[in-house]
Amino acid sequence: MKITITGLDVFDVRFPTSRQLDGSDATHPDPDYSAAYVVLTAANGATGHGFCFTIGRGNEVCVAAIEAYAPHVTGRDIDLDDLGEFSRRLVNDSQLRWLGPEKGVAHMALAALVNAAFDLAGVAAGKPVWKLLADYTPEQVVDLVDWRYLTDALTPSTALDLLKDRSTGKDAREAELRRGGYPAYTTTPGWLGYTDEKLVRLAREAVADGFTQIKIKVGSDLTADVRRMRLARAAVGTDVRIAIDANQRWDVQQAIDWVGRLAEHDPYWIEEPTSPDDILGHAAIRRAVAPVKVATGEHTHNRVMFKQLLAVGAIDVLQLDACRVGGVTENVAILLLAAHFGVPVCPHAGGVGLCEVVQHLAMFDFVAVSGSVDGRAIEYVDHLHEHFIDPVRVVSGHYLAPSQPGMSSRMWPDTLAAHRYPDGSVWQ
Amino acid sequence: MKITITGLDVFDVRFPTSRQLDGSDATHPDPDYSAAYVVLTAANGATGHGFCFTIGRGNEVCVAAIEAYAPHVTGRDIDLDDLGEFSRRLVNDSQLRWLGPEKGVAHMALAALVNAAFDLAGVAAGKPVWKLLADYTPEQVVDLVDWRYLTDALTPSTALDLLKDRSTGKDAREAELRRGGYPAYTTTPGWLGYTDEKLVRLAREAVADGFTQIKIKVGSDLTADVRRMRLARAAVGTDVRIAIDANQRWDVQQAIDWVGRLAEHDPYWIEEPTSPDDILGHAAIRRAVAPVKVATGEHTHNRVMFKQLLAVGAIDVLQLDACRVGGVTENVAILLLAAHFGVPVCPHAGGVGLCEVVQHLAMFDFVAVSGSVDGRAIEYVDHLHEHFIDPVRVVSGHYLAPSQPGMSSRMWPDTLAAHRYPDGSVWQ
Repeated sequence: MKITITGLDVFDVRFPTSRQLDGSDATHPDPDYSAAYVVLTAANGATGHGFCFTIGRGNEVCVAAIEAYAPHVTGRDIDLDDLGEFSRRLVNDSQLRWLGPEKGVAHMALAALVNAAFDLAGVAAGKPVWKLLADYTPEQVVDLVDWRYLTDALTPSTALDLLKDRSTGKDAREAELRRGGYPAYTTTPGWLGYTDEKLVRLAREAVADGFTQIKIKVGSDLTADVRRMRLARAAVGTDVRIAIDANQRWDVQQAIDWVGRLAEHDPYWIEEPTSPDDILGHAAIRRAVAPVKVATGEHTHNRVMFKQLLAVGAIDVLQLDACRVGGVTENVAILLLAAHFGVPVCPHAGGVGLCEVVQHLAMFDFVAVSGSVDGRAIEYVDHLHEHFIDPVRVVSGHYLAPSQPGMSSRMWPDTLAAHRYPDGSVWQ
Repeated sequence: MKITITGLDVFDVRFPTSRQLDGSDATHPDPDYSAAYVVLTAANGATGHGFCFTIGRGNEVCVAAIEAYAPHVTGRDIDLDDLGEFSRRLVNDSQLRWLGPEKGVAHMALAALVNAAFDLAGVAAGKPVWKLLADYTPEQVVDLVDWRYLTDALTPSTALDLLKDRSTGKDAREAELRRGGYPAYTTTPGWLGYTDEKLVRLAREAVADGFTQIKIKVGSDLTADVRRMRLARAAVGTDVRIAIDANQRWDVQQAIDWVGRLAEHDPYWIEEPTSPDDILGHAAIRRAVAPVKVATGEHTHNRVMFKQLLAVGAIDVLQLDACRVGGVTENVAILLLAAHFGVPVCPHAGGVGLCEVVQHLAMFDFVAVSGSVDGRAIEYVDHLHEHFIDPVRVVSGHYLAPSQPGMSSRMWPDTLAAHRYPDGSVWQ
């Protein structure tokens, strides 16, 4: 179904989260969760909403980058049944490509547009995006992917075989998802700016709420980390997993040494131990800290980097992000790579709206790609969901499957008005 | 010497190079060479000029990104003897960091600012930047570098030893540089949009002008590439090197096959055979196409990527770019890594102003870091130099050492006015 886009509106939306140190970690002590938020309007009046996530300053640069793609969007047709073409049209702009290629601000902006197009497609089909994707034929899924640079690791035909194999049991998995939801873990207790008392209280609440995994931030102060890890372990007991997250703080040997000092409290994974670009560094850390797992991905900028992280055995857990790479289409490529290499995907979320959007990808993965929730959980943070028209519903440590059409990406009009930077009422 | 910055002015400067297909390649068929150009003004009235290079659309996004760093620049002091601190101040902005980290638009913008600060430092010292850097003590050079994420490959103390070792003979190398210049190779003949006749004519002119290496673009059409490579080889003879450049066009196996088909005409290196992010892919290609060398770097986004390319033996030639990574400071780190691993650096240039700026880094490298020009040459393209106050001088296939203070980065005021986008006269 082709549809003509007649409007592209972009909003600089920011939330003053730094005032409570929500989201504080060793590298980002004072984030103001923000979104460069785009609304596509079609000739028939339908709209598609998407965004990329930032942590404050520079959100206006992402707004400018989204607007730079306008010639490929405004006044142009989008085929809602061939959004791979739409994605490749943006990726291959012969001049904008120089700004990446396929990384950083330009790629984040592209993600906002691609995800908005999928929101529009979901609304047009009357389906949540996870279901829209799950109902695609294997051929349609393969056609979403830009296969360039992937074929030494995974070819379209191998991916097609994988998807056809997973067709068995799809209906049962969809029913299971609708019944029980998708596992979640929570980062709510663990922000670095929180007091020990708040950490312990929130960790206990998390267990009481049914979570079987929490995450705490580390990497600023070793003595404090040892103490916080001990307190968290005492609060949750031995049966609940505690992931730790260094937010890129360390060099390779420093990561190995630091994780070694925390090992007695049984961390489940170490997340972002070093530069997100350091594929070989992650591999070296993984070899040294096992059985502690190594996780990364929220800053991994495209499928080529994920291909290498997987091929070289650098990670135990792949942390998909809904709007760092080029949106749904590139994330489908990454889900296929992860399934091919047998590495579980535990999506990055939190921020503003990341939980809402990424749940669709994880649920599609369960129904149609990996076919499993073993060792998998979507990150959850209980912030800012009230700003969304179709907020996530997390019950007993599980995300319930969204039922509204689209990608759950729409903020309330009052939110867009009040949080618009710098003129919204919140910023006065 | 501390200096207060009172002004930060940014210009969107574009040249309509696509009208003649100058700069056309397999991935970028129609570039309009552009610069997001920044002028820092100090309290004493001195100015520093820098820019990042783009190929047209999206240059305004880089302008916005430069302006996003203003709180760290305008009204703030810069210590011209400690520009590593200035660089790290920009890199570590706790919110802007999210836009990369250290990649894409945000990092290119940072490069423009860091290079402008070095231009200012050169002017203040009355020295061209290559000489300013060459006169630094080994300790000062080491202090320029952000060592984070590097220490598994190279530590500050090993770098210090390397620099102290290279102190021997510095004066003689400086004299040699002033006398004979630094080797160049030319890409002028080889743009993909040029006719065969133009290719042959320009290739012959290049040899007559004293160049011992030319470069031609490949990757769009194998039959045409075989023909053009044969014509170029016939035009230059067997003693002149012909590098080929695919501008990221291929998958890994495709690169191996395509280079194999051109091998009979003795290509010297294959440049950007695949995604610039594919470290392991470059390593696989290198193993397969030897003795043809593998070169990359103009799109390699930071020192962490270069560290891995070098550590894994993925490249024979490192192509430094003056304003893709974070400016002089990060390029010093990359020069140290290259010297440590014994890989020659052949800087990427062309575009607008890239020759002017990058020559300073190569000359510093010869005098103080690698201490050699063996296997090294700076790319040269004879476009747009007339727009610079201190343009490169290339004679008999060699860049002559700049003598004017600063980084040769200043465009004429008339150029800035006429090429300002979209209101300059050139764009009317």
